[in-house]
Amino acid sequence: MIAERLQLFEPTLLLDKQRCLANIAAMAERAKRSNVIFRPHFKTHQSHEVGRWIRNTGVNKITVSSVKMAEYFANDGWNDITVAFPVNVHEKKRINALAEKITLNLLVVSPEPIAWLAREVKHSVSLFIEIDTGQHRTGLQHTDIAGIDALLAEISRYPHLQFKGFLSHGGHSYKITGDRREIHHTGISIIGQLRKLKEHYQHHYPDLILSPGDTPTCSILESFAGADEIRPGNFVFYDYGQFHIGSCSLDQIAVALAVPVVAENPDRHEVVVHGGAVHLSKDSMLYHGKTIYGKVVQLTDQGWSTAETNMYVKYVSQEHGVIHCENPETVRTGDWLGILPVHSCLTADVMKAYTTLEGERIDMMR
Amino acid sequence: MIAERLQLFEPTLLLDKQRCLANIAAMAERAKRSNVIFRPHFKTHQSHEVGRWIRNTGVNKITVSSVKMAEYFANDGWNDITVAFPVNVHEKKRINALAEKITLNLLVVSPEPIAWLAREVKHSVSLFIEIDTGQHRTGLQHTDIAGIDALLAEISRYPHLQFKGFLSHGGHSYKITGDRREIHHTGISIIGQLRKLKEHYQHHYPDLILSPGDTPTCSILESFAGADEIRPGNFVFYDYGQFHIGSCSLDQIAVALAVPVVAENPDRHEVVVHGGAVHLSKDSMLYHGKTIYGKVVQLTDQGWSTAETNMYVKYVSQEHGVIHCENPETVRTGDWLGILPVHSCLTADVMKAYTTLEGERIDMMR
Repeated sequence: MIAERLQLFEPTLLLDKQRCLANIAAMAERAKRSNVIFRPHFKTHQSHEVGRWIRNTGVNKITVSSVKMAEYFANDGWNDITVAFPVNVHEKKRINALAEKITLNLLVVSPEPIAWLAREVKHSVSLFIEIDTGQHRTGLQHTDIAGIDALLAEISRYPHLQFKGFLSHGGHSYKITGDRREIHHTGISIIGQLRKLKEHYQHHYPDLILSPGDTPTCSILESFAGADEIRPGNFVFYDYGQFHIGSCSLDQIAVALAVPVVAENPDRHEVVVHGGAVHLSKDSMLYHGKTIYGKVVQLTDQGWSTAETNMYVKYVSQEHGVIHCENPETVRTGDWLGILPVHSCLTADVMKAYTTLEGERIDMMR
Repeated sequence: MIAERLQLFEPTLLLDKQRCLANIAAMAERAKRSNVIFRPHFKTHQSHEVGRWIRNTGVNKITVSSVKMAEYFANDGWNDITVAFPVNVHEKKRINALAEKITLNLLVVSPEPIAWLAREVKHSVSLFIEIDTGQHRTGLQHTDIAGIDALLAEISRYPHLQFKGFLSHGGHSYKITGDRREIHHTGISIIGQLRKLKEHYQHHYPDLILSPGDTPTCSILESFAGADEIRPGNFVFYDYGQFHIGSCSLDQIAVALAVPVVAENPDRHEVVVHGGAVHLSKDSMLYHGKTIYGKVVQLTDQGWSTAETNMYVKYVSQEHGVIHCENPETVRTGDWLGILPVHSCLTADVMKAYTTLEGERIDMMR
């Protein structure tokens, strides 16, 4: 079994490199088929090594979620990076250092940060305007032409700021579960809203880029026609949440947390593992009406099986994971189990390293 | 304002050292008054530096939640450490290395790990038996004399294993909100259950130790009479969750996440900050019937104010924190806000460093 083969002794985030490479190749192929730029989001893996696997498929533009993360990937040779998070007007030093070195694309949702960038950043910077296509987190409505015009007017005052296009994160697609038609419909709606802006603004900005890109719609739409680039991130690993949404199959999930069983409570149909909030994060999902924190799989010699186990993570405290176990007599203290995370981005973030099925350790941003 | 004074530029976990020292002194004093051993849990702060502040009050015994954490603190000179987590039978190397060097106390809940320790660990180790006093996570019931006898019989077979006593984590006290009498009652019940075991076993084990110790009951009980040691952890910082439970006052909370505002959505009564799940964790609590991920406070020149702001963290995604804001016109992009975490242990764990109000950076275990 893999835990013995790799001599695991503590909670370990296993990464199936072959699945990850297949996920990358599949999404790159989808982007190519639709003739859109593939600018994957690197916030999921946060790793130089996984980034290199992606670079090997020909990708040379990426997305990140913070300037710090842009810095981390610029240090590994990436030189065209979009920070898909509204400008923080306190990061003058980092933004200047990056803008001097690479093609830096930032996100704006209001005029003040534009004036601040113009004043404080001495190098050329490109700007995306964020459009709220339904998530209602940040961004302007596509119907808010006055608001968008105000941002464009502000940008156009400064020669070292370039308007690059409209960006949207369709995070509302994460709320759809198991209804691929509805996800498809959401994806079409996101692109449709952005298209309206292109029709309105392309006369003045013929090169403007429309950039949607959440993993569910990017995994399900058969064509991205109308968009110019896509920015999915989670697809490199997927997770049990994405499986539940309908974005991936179980055997596309490329990470599993290997955990040792430390206690048995058969009366309560529970076993306890070393694998808690500091290993999985505390992200949860609804599963057959219950809140769960991960889905349990059996580890195999090569990795893990996707066969149903009747086990799931019922709750987590800091280090404990309590597993509901339909047949508790089948699990013993000292056994190893696998947990498919509800949300691989956050699990990766707390674990800060991967171990491939071949036993290679892969580091992440710290 | 503190963000300018300390030249903050990104989400930063502020630590009020004076409050932290006062929290430590108060709990040490409570333990002293009841004449019990004070063995604080270090899983909350995970920091050599904060550990040294505690050592300065005369503490020389500590609790941790993993063998890895025991290793980290042993490297800073701690030589009597209880790992309050059931033995993981795959950590042979780490346990041996520690048991050779320090007084190592481990936790058992079933016979197999005892036999494993006897076989695989070459140095003397002390064992606590975990008692489930109501949390129903791990441990034996105090009424399960047959089960406890079986563990004691197993321990007694091996000369280098010593039975040390009964340990319990009263995690069920975290489910009580705002009812100090009920927390008090829970604390009395926990000690009462452990006392029954002492009465039963002290003839054979005259030195056995009863070790309860969750922060709510340790903060509220006026006496720990009947117990021999306490192991609270969260009290060093407390948090908004503990305030809600009734364990602390607002001005005992010693950590706040400083975050910059990056977007305003006054129509929805929201502002968005750089401060998401990777900064706060995704722990939540119910607050006036709503799930919240943190309570917003105003930063001041010296730290933060505890005055009511009518703002709370409504939800978090990976990097975004969406703040509900009763008076959104009072908050502007570029402003800094403070967030009192729902659960400081998990916030500290994801942030991996503190900045004191004097601007000193304090590192944590990695």
